[in-house]
Amino acid sequence: MQAEIITIGDEILIGQIVDTNSAFMAELLSLNGVTVKQISSVSDDREHILKALKEAKERASIILITGGLGPTKDDITKKTLCEYFSTTMRFDKVVYQDVVDVFASYGREVTPTNRLQAEVPANCEVVRNFNGTAPGMWFDVDGTIYVSMPGVPYEMKAMMKNQIIPKIKQRFELPFIYHKTILTQGIGESSLADLISDWEDSLESEKIKLAYLPSPGMVRLRLTTIGNDENKLRIAVENKIEDLTKIISEFIYGYEIFGEESESLEEIVGSLLRNKNKTIATAESCTGGYISHLLTRIPGSSDYYVGSVISYSYEIKETELGISKALLDTQGAVSQQVVEQMAKAIRLKYKTDYSIAASGIAGPGGGTEDKPVGTVWIAIATPEKVISEKFLFGKNRERNIEKTANSALNMLRKELD
Amino acid sequence: MQAEIITIGDEILIGQIVDTNSAFMAELLSLNGVTVKQISSVSDDREHILKALKEAKERASIILITGGLGPTKDDITKKTLCEYFSTTMRFDKVVYQDVVDVFASYGREVTPTNRLQAEVPANCEVVRNFNGTAPGMWFDVDGTIYVSMPGVPYEMKAMMKNQIIPKIKQRFELPFIYHKTILTQGIGESSLADLISDWEDSLESEKIKLAYLPSPGMVRLRLTTIGNDENKLRIAVENKIEDLTKIISEFIYGYEIFGEESESLEEIVGSLLRNKNKTIATAESCTGGYISHLLTRIPGSSDYYVGSVISYSYEIKETELGISKALLDTQGAVSQQVVEQMAKAIRLKYKTDYSIAASGIAGPGGGTEDKPVGTVWIAIATPEKVISEKFLFGKNRERNIEKTANSALNMLRKELD
Repeated sequence: MQAEIITIGDEILIGQIVDTNSAFMAELLSLNGVTVKQISSVSDDREHILKALKEAKERASIILITGGLGPTKDDITKKTLCEYFSTTMRFDKVVYQDVVDVFASYGREVTPTNRLQAEVPANCEVVRNFNGTAPGMWFDVDGTIYVSMPGVPYEMKAMMKNQIIPKIKQRFELPFIYHKTILTQGIGESSLADLISDWEDSLESEKIKLAYLPSPGMVRLRLTTIGNDENKLRIAVENKIEDLTKIISEFIYGYEIFGEESESLEEIVGSLLRNKNKTIATAESCTGGYISHLLTRIPGSSDYYVGSVISYSYEIKETELGISKALLDTQGAVSQQVVEQMAKAIRLKYKTDYSIAASGIAGPGGGTEDKPVGTVWIAIATPEKVISEKFLFGKNRERNIEKTANSALNMLRKELD
Repeated sequence: MQAEIITIGDEILIGQIVDTNSAFMAELLSLNGVTVKQISSVSDDREHILKALKEAKERASIILITGGLGPTKDDITKKTLCEYFSTTMRFDKVVYQDVVDVFASYGREVTPTNRLQAEVPANCEVVRNFNGTAPGMWFDVDGTIYVSMPGVPYEMKAMMKNQIIPKIKQRFELPFIYHKTILTQGIGESSLADLISDWEDSLESEKIKLAYLPSPGMVRLRLTTIGNDENKLRIAVENKIEDLTKIISEFIYGYEIFGEESESLEEIVGSLLRNKNKTIATAESCTGGYISHLLTRIPGSSDYYVGSVISYSYEIKETELGISKALLDTQGAVSQQVVEQMAKAIRLKYKTDYSIAASGIAGPGGGTEDKPVGTVWIAIATPEKVISEKFLFGKNRERNIEKTANSALNMLRKELD
């Protein structure tokens, strides 16, 4: 079963807002076994909307439309739908009562402009809007379903989840789709592709599709399969993941089951710390507080996160973390000895079980021949030991900071696992 | 001049990622006088991509394509472009050298998979990628420009801004657009709209368009006008800005100059500190290192940023910042006295000229009747004094952290100005 999404509104086309509605609708459809073939954002323009509808109809059996339903002059979706279906408007009493009720709840009367909300194309089935005044509309014409929804995200989301998806499931017999995503850290997309190339080839016979989803320092690998036997699909995917785990276990930090939100590395680390009743502190140089920020953006992180010293200058490394001037002068701040001492010092000073320390050259300046931009040392101190690792990232400051933080969190995760 | 944007990749169609690239491209095009007619997200599917290209060509003279350029097996954009233009691949030596250099900078050799990055359709002009290995491609065929760019946001953004937009301006005669953006902090979108409503009405007669661009704690106001007489447009906009400044001067922290990227608050603060040869440290509680991260993500920030104490626990506030247990017990960590003492303590301890301290209830837990979620105290210590202010933000943790950081930076900016 194929669907298309059409969003109507100039604000997306001038880049003023990011279209988050489409991602929401697409995810819900995918989860329910509907393949989204195309997402189109078109202007508030009669001819353009008509063309988009005709093009979508050639490819899809379900067409979801959002936006352009407000009562103001630039919203022309309803009129254009009338034209598309060669029909006229009718006045819907149920919708009108909903509009009256919404206005009454604000202690106001319905204005003539808002009375227009109750006008709908004659051939539609109304989908009531319990969060606003613009109704949804369901059209079942020549075997194609068209749904028009308001563009206000929370109105659309509630309508989509509670009314439209159930109606689609009733109207069509849908296949089962199984997705699972493997979360990896510490290996680039192309190195990963080389490493798993034989395994990747083996997916074809099982009709499993693979997608690489990279972000700084991480690659997510998504497996997708479609069919009717839910159990068979799941087993096929899980078997392949078992094979993959043998090849790249050291890089895998988690899994994302489709439909569930994927846990971030800092959430995984946070859960491990909480479950083990352990605490953490950080001593950061090149990351400038970013590791600390990632840890503390998780609600409830005060259960395990105690605090940090951001020692950007040499002097703070000396006075607050007790790194000797001699060591800094001979080895430099970006060195194994310094970063290990930073980790040990913050763990003792802040009386935590674990600590992270990072020191590197984020760039764009500060690189030398020996230590080019992107050189980073990371250390983890545990109750038993200190481990450290050297990395050579790229030239981009912001990405170097992100990659350092993600690598550090993953090193800690391995120690906690 | 009309353009269309085509993004290729199943990850958008299954709703796994939100398409932020299109908004970025659409905004840049709009700001340069190009109207975006449609944005389409299509699947990694040969036939579908071909169809999308044909449909776009009917409506637009410029077609921007992103995604599907990685070296891995699911990326088919280049092959499909060859088919669309009835051409074959050629090996590009300049691209290959770029790939070699990128790999060399990581101390690695080019893999066979990555060698494929240097294969491009024979009829394209290569657009070099200075941030990754997949090149951009520029096609000028029958009066239509097609540009294929990598989907990785920072690679696409740099290419778009520094190479593609200048090439489009050279290739087409575009109308003159003058825009200037006023950067405000400390007033919400709707309060701002109420405050400047008469001024906003006065823009119409000058044919100046106004856009509100909100982000947590900030609103950017963008004025845009289009025409042929550059000087006249500039004067009209500057006059309106002069009027606006009289109304909302206390909220304005900067301006975004025509064609240049707007300076962030942390960049403005950084420049002020550097120019005055002053230093800064932070003592953070609820922001958990985020203020420090904002300050240090600016290249060269080690010239003025010294370090921070992130005192998340009560104990660290006592031991590292000398806040007395009695004060914490009677006033609570989120109080004027505590936050002022934090600012004073970090300034003295880290021997800086200025300091920022923040303590608040970011949420979702931890609120009380007296101090609900969103309550934040911020203090700034200067060589002469300590100032502090109480804020009541919202319920969203992430936004509260952002708003606190932006408010703190703006308080410091006012002291430095």
